[in-house]
Amino acid sequence: MNCEILAVGTELLLGNTVNTDAADLSVLLSGLGVNVFWHSVVGDNPARLRDAVAVARRRADLIVTTGGLGPTYDDLTKTVLAEAFGLKLVLHQDEADFLRDWFARNGTSPYTDNNLQQAYLPEGCTVFHNDWGTAPGCAFEAGGVHVIMLPGPPRECLPMFKACAAPYIKALSGEVIFSRQIRVFGMGESAIEALFRAEMEHMANPSLATYAKFGEVMLRATAKAPTEAEAEELCRPVVEKVKAALGHRVYGVDVDSLEALCLESMTDRGLTLSAAESLTGGLIGERFTALPGASAVFKGGAVTYCDEVKAALLCIDPALIAEKGAVSREVAEAMAGGVRRAVGADLGLSATGLAGPDGDGVHPVGTVYVGLADKDRVWVRELHLGTGRARVRQAAASHAFDMLRRYLQGLPIETW
Amino acid sequence: MNCEILAVGTELLLGNTVNTDAADLSVLLSGLGVNVFWHSVVGDNPARLRDAVAVARRRADLIVTTGGLGPTYDDLTKTVLAEAFGLKLVLHQDEADFLRDWFARNGTSPYTDNNLQQAYLPEGCTVFHNDWGTAPGCAFEAGGVHVIMLPGPPRECLPMFKACAAPYIKALSGEVIFSRQIRVFGMGESAIEALFRAEMEHMANPSLATYAKFGEVMLRATAKAPTEAEAEELCRPVVEKVKAALGHRVYGVDVDSLEALCLESMTDRGLTLSAAESLTGGLIGERFTALPGASAVFKGGAVTYCDEVKAALLCIDPALIAEKGAVSREVAEAMAGGVRRAVGADLGLSATGLAGPDGDGVHPVGTVYVGLADKDRVWVRELHLGTGRARVRQAAASHAFDMLRRYLQGLPIETW
Repeated sequence: MNCEILAVGTELLLGNTVNTDAADLSVLLSGLGVNVFWHSVVGDNPARLRDAVAVARRRADLIVTTGGLGPTYDDLTKTVLAEAFGLKLVLHQDEADFLRDWFARNGTSPYTDNNLQQAYLPEGCTVFHNDWGTAPGCAFEAGGVHVIMLPGPPRECLPMFKACAAPYIKALSGEVIFSRQIRVFGMGESAIEALFRAEMEHMANPSLATYAKFGEVMLRATAKAPTEAEAEELCRPVVEKVKAALGHRVYGVDVDSLEALCLESMTDRGLTLSAAESLTGGLIGERFTALPGASAVFKGGAVTYCDEVKAALLCIDPALIAEKGAVSREVAEAMAGGVRRAVGADLGLSATGLAGPDGDGVHPVGTVYVGLADKDRVWVRELHLGTGRARVRQAAASHAFDMLRRYLQGLPIETW
Repeated sequence: MNCEILAVGTELLLGNTVNTDAADLSVLLSGLGVNVFWHSVVGDNPARLRDAVAVARRRADLIVTTGGLGPTYDDLTKTVLAEAFGLKLVLHQDEADFLRDWFARNGTSPYTDNNLQQAYLPEGCTVFHNDWGTAPGCAFEAGGVHVIMLPGPPRECLPMFKACAAPYIKALSGEVIFSRQIRVFGMGESAIEALFRAEMEHMANPSLATYAKFGEVMLRATAKAPTEAEAEELCRPVVEKVKAALGHRVYGVDVDSLEALCLESMTDRGLTLSAAESLTGGLIGERFTALPGASAVFKGGAVTYCDEVKAALLCIDPALIAEKGAVSREVAEAMAGGVRRAVGADLGLSATGLAGPDGDGVHPVGTVYVGLADKDRVWVRELHLGTGRARVRQAAASHAFDMLRRYLQGLPIETW
């Protein structure tokens, strides 16, 4: 079943609202074996919506609309869709009663006649009652196309999809989709693709695709089968093949991120973490503490954006900085060990280098040293990350987390 | 000029990636007087992309594509668009040289032949060089339709739009569009909209629109006129009216962010900054040091994610923390003063509080104290920021920067 998600709302075209519904519904739909091939957005304009519906019904078997079901004059999704499919809008008395009750109970807004508009739905449709707001959704089939209409606000749209639309779709189709996400750090997307191109081009079920994100690559193996167990079984050899080919660069399967993997492992083992950051300016701490539960592991750290602060907060010998320079293997070592001791943590991460745009006259922009210390040893990676301030900083932080996950997984730490 | 934003990428249809480019480009395009009437998304599939281009060129004067310009076999935007408009792809030697250099400098991935694919662009196009990644963008006109192709990753797409596409679009229209962005912190979008609703509904030239983002609101006054001076003159009374109505909540006009304003002012005045971060975990330092030139102002700071580290790095009396609790006005004061002294900076910022999802059994999630210290005084804001870990952390950091900009602008600091 090939699906188009058609969002209706001028706020999306003005850029005031991001169309998160489309992404979230896509995840849910692909989990039901539906191919989402198109997303589209039009404003609250009858002519352009009519045209968008004509485009959608020509190419899709299932049209899922979001938005435009409310009580105001610019809520025109139902009117336009019903007309396009030759259906009349009829009053659904149950929904009308619910609306009158709802406004009686929720005294803030008065019940006006236009609220009743929400109870008019295409004749013969399956009504999706809205337990999260007021406007009901619905589903119908006409002319060989299935149409599902959902409200726009994510807090109504997503639960209504799960409670009402998902069972409706399951009843239409017979297959499930299963996928595994293989996460890779330390190799570019094009190099990975070159390894698997032959498979990627010829595989249909299971399929394999690459996604580059934040300096990492994710490979997704996806399979369709009558049952989840069969689909999972189809994915297994692909996952094993990727893991065998990429070795230690695969940091996990179905995990969220390098730092999430580290947090989980350190929580389990009761280890604590600290970070001394120069070029990353707080990014390592920020990324780690963005995760709920980080406070069980992350004790703190120092942002040492100038030499005196490296000495003051981390007790680094100013003579070492003078001799080797702030951007050096030795200072990265001293920072990782220094922050571990200053904070009293089991492990210390460090990053020093040049994010650009200006260099220091000695090293090229993108020269970065990333360190990891435990109570016995310090490891350092020397990196040449190129240009682009934000990219260099993110890559430096990712290398720090990659060293940490290799430490936790018992792998070589300095190479990657 | 009526525009369709056409995103190309299977990752969007799978729901792995949210199409934030469409929203961000819509804001930028409408600032140039372009009507964005359609957003659409298709996957990395030639037939469906070809069909989507046919739909777009029938209804739009300007097609802006995002994504699919990279080196892998599924990056097919240029191929399909060039074919659809009857143009050949030709090698652009400057871009080929740049790519070879780029891979030589950024040693992690090898330069493979498929990387060269990025240097092939439609014949006769205007090349948009990519200073933020590798794949160039471009623009051309064919059959009465203007086409602009941009890379997908937001950190490449958005700066390339501003640097290359915006001047290209400006040059197409006979009129000059001039806009002023009025940046507001400390008041919600609906409250602001209620103040100006009458004007916003009836004004056409100049127009006024609000955008809410990251806990701030931006009002944009836009005018069209034959010359920039005339358009600017049309905007002036609107800007003055908004500034008069919102007072100190307006932190700047045509500035990038609170922290950018602070960096500029502190650089001019030779002041230095430090930060002590608890719930923000490094975010204040990260946001400030994301700005090029931050090293002239930001000396460093401490991430004190547990009580011992507050004592160890900032010399805060453990008895104070025991008596008042880590989430308290007094500890925020001690952190701001402590980090200023530890780091030897003119000013210190601090943030302590509960980002959630778990509370501490005493304060509700979202309770935050943000501090600012100079050599003579400390100021603290007590905040109740509600729930949502990422939102609370960002809002806490923004409040810290808002206190700093009010200090620098000589305004009351603790109220907002």
